[in-house]
Amino acid sequence: MFDAMRIEIINTGSELMLGRVLNTHQQWLCRQFADRGYTVNRQVAVDDTGPAIEGAVCEALGRAELIVVTGGLGPTSDDRTRDLIAALLGKKLHEDSSVVAHIQDYFTSRRRPMPASTLIQAMVPENTQVLMNAHGTAPGLVMEPVGSAGIACRLLVMLPGPPRELRPMFSEQVLPLLRDRLPLPVPFVCRTLKTTGMGESQVEEKIALSLRALTDGGMDLGYCARIGEVDVRFVGRGVEAQRSVEDAERIVRGILGPLVFAVDDEQLEETIVRLLASRKQTIALAESCTGGAIADRLTNVPGASAVFLAGLVTYSNEAKQKFLGVRAETLAQHGAVSEATVREMAEGARTATGADYAISVTGIAGPGGGTPEKPVGTVWIGVASAAGTIAQRRFNAFDRETFKNVTSQHALDLLRRQMHGAA
Amino acid sequence: MFDAMRIEIINTGSELMLGRVLNTHQQWLCRQFADRGYTVNRQVAVDDTGPAIEGAVCEALGRAELIVVTGGLGPTSDDRTRDLIAALLGKKLHEDSSVVAHIQDYFTSRRRPMPASTLIQAMVPENTQVLMNAHGTAPGLVMEPVGSAGIACRLLVMLPGPPRELRPMFSEQVLPLLRDRLPLPVPFVCRTLKTTGMGESQVEEKIALSLRALTDGGMDLGYCARIGEVDVRFVGRGVEAQRSVEDAERIVRGILGPLVFAVDDEQLEETIVRLLASRKQTIALAESCTGGAIADRLTNVPGASAVFLAGLVTYSNEAKQKFLGVRAETLAQHGAVSEATVREMAEGARTATGADYAISVTGIAGPGGGTPEKPVGTVWIGVASAAGTIAQRRFNAFDRETFKNVTSQHALDLLRRQMHGAA
Repeated sequence: MFDAMRIEIINTGSELMLGRVLNTHQQWLCRQFADRGYTVNRQVAVDDTGPAIEGAVCEALGRAELIVVTGGLGPTSDDRTRDLIAALLGKKLHEDSSVVAHIQDYFTSRRRPMPASTLIQAMVPENTQVLMNAHGTAPGLVMEPVGSAGIACRLLVMLPGPPRELRPMFSEQVLPLLRDRLPLPVPFVCRTLKTTGMGESQVEEKIALSLRALTDGGMDLGYCARIGEVDVRFVGRGVEAQRSVEDAERIVRGILGPLVFAVDDEQLEETIVRLLASRKQTIALAESCTGGAIADRLTNVPGASAVFLAGLVTYSNEAKQKFLGVRAETLAQHGAVSEATVREMAEGARTATGADYAISVTGIAGPGGGTPEKPVGTVWIGVASAAGTIAQRRFNAFDRETFKNVTSQHALDLLRRQMHGAA
Repeated sequence: MFDAMRIEIINTGSELMLGRVLNTHQQWLCRQFADRGYTVNRQVAVDDTGPAIEGAVCEALGRAELIVVTGGLGPTSDDRTRDLIAALLGKKLHEDSSVVAHIQDYFTSRRRPMPASTLIQAMVPENTQVLMNAHGTAPGLVMEPVGSAGIACRLLVMLPGPPRELRPMFSEQVLPLLRDRLPLPVPFVCRTLKTTGMGESQVEEKIALSLRALTDGGMDLGYCARIGEVDVRFVGRGVEAQRSVEDAERIVRGILGPLVFAVDDEQLEETIVRLLASRKQTIALAESCTGGAIADRLTNVPGASAVFLAGLVTYSNEAKQKFLGVRAETLAQHGAVSEATVREMAEGARTATGADYAISVTGIAGPGGGTPEKPVGTVWIGVASAAGTIAQRRFNAFDRETFKNVTSQHALDLLRRQMHGAA
């Protein structure tokens, strides 16, 4: 269709190469680009020594139209990116008064003294655009290296390393610049539908044929399996992009119905809080083996306090009895991991809190505690509401943290489907 | 001292370049190498098309002694790493009967039919060592490319992409091979002490001078600031390595005392569970603004059920009264975010569960809910025990998830210090 622009990301920092920190920039930046029709071709991480950074930048300059370099813009002696790249491109540095003013404001407004070394961040290469840092002191820098022999790079963007500085700077300042200076040759539309309740190949079997006309017409269709979720992603390019993506969404929603729970980046816990808030309903939790993981997810959503009353993490049998009113006979007769117990837990949490809905979970996370009848991974999930109580058995035989993730996903989804009358 | 070996990591996968998945291999592999005295010089991620993989591998072959390539060893059409690298090095592929047997066993033991396409994973390049995959079907592959013109690479290791396959294969099979074929020229010892309660520069001020003799003698000393933690890392090389690292640990423990909470990779929640278990004591939680995050962390530790009785996530005032016995007058007079309330929460949780210790947390996570007197980020933390109840005010003005992380760290650390009689 058209020649795609070449994009490379260079992450600098010795802490990356020593494995002291996780590089979240790669995924975040690649996703930002991909959702707007740009594809990153290569990502490189190197330590913050001169030869390593110079080597990576030199290679990229010769072949990529857009280069994003992260890290090394701060005030300390190992922040060398700015100086090294200016030198590579033969640019002198000068003090930029707008950056000086920004840094001074930053410290004044926080009533902190300004270390003198901080002002080194105001040194800017010639002919370089400054991106002010709303959440820190190091500015982003944008250069246009193309013109010299052997240089393909039209835009070189340097961004500060901390994610809470880099992310807003990229969204608010780099993306508009990208649209302006390196626009896509044709319109681009991308949408992701998030589904639960079926595996990747099942989802594909159900929908692929019905989307054939659209994919034959050039729309891209992709699947991504996650923990307890499958993403279905449509990408349209050209004048028909918007229409084909909308047609695809309508077709898939028609086939999968309530299995589609959200669009694009919404998490399942956000869906739940949004649904409950819109209905002015409330929820309580009775967690055993998930150990607070469901409460943690729900309370990550701003505004959760309007719908979430209480979570009772009843790890011991005594706690199940005391806080949820589970009967001693039930525990003795059926055990803590049983349909009878999970039902009493959900009903007990709902009664004790007066919530409209209560989720309960009891199971064996492992690595210990399994038996031949109830092996590690066995879990019961319950949902109590005015419509009655439902219970579901699952077998999630994974390591402990994956078990908690998968099980919390199953539990939130059981509630969601019950709220849709589809459980 | 000596020329370090050059190591490069190549991660393949189009899902990486589209930002659909997070690349955890980089940090994990870099850390594994660093802790054993090897430093990774470069990490590259490329999509799984032929030219991208060939380009990255060719560049690395010419300059790195050790190359680790991840991903692309599976049975599907986009798994091309094995074929591409064999072709680059001019090696023919043949079916390896031990891998065929392993794959057949894998499916038989799981009582699943074996898809015919799976056997493509048994195709192995000539003169290549096979690493059996204990958790999947794709074997790892080890080649020794050195010998041809322009090739510096002595060991090229291909590993399967899924972390739960890659990690044990690396630890159990690649590390011994590394020690055998690419040994370090001198002994190497590395140890990390994890501390809480002080910032990075404070820690440095306290200890750097006392370690001067050791660092002057060649021991490396590094700091890494994390959420509510500062790591202090000692690296010794040569015949004195073991002794200098041990001396350094003794000196730092002498200065920082109970601020040192763990060695190497132990998490604070693991320290807490270990301490409680060794004393045969128990714990309960009363969480408001952390919303179950502390319970979630504690229950990530295998064996937590021996010490953790219950966590009460009391988001609403009604829940604080009902489950923890916080008095209505206390809430009316002091508010939910107050010293009086946090004390009653901790004492209420301890009384209701009979636990030896109870932690309580109440605060304003934001983004909404702040007032001029109690702005977003305000938080009270309490610990109740037989020794009485202590309470501490903190101001953690961050985004919602960071607030929960930092606050849970502060809360666990307050308990830890109380257990040491040092709060």
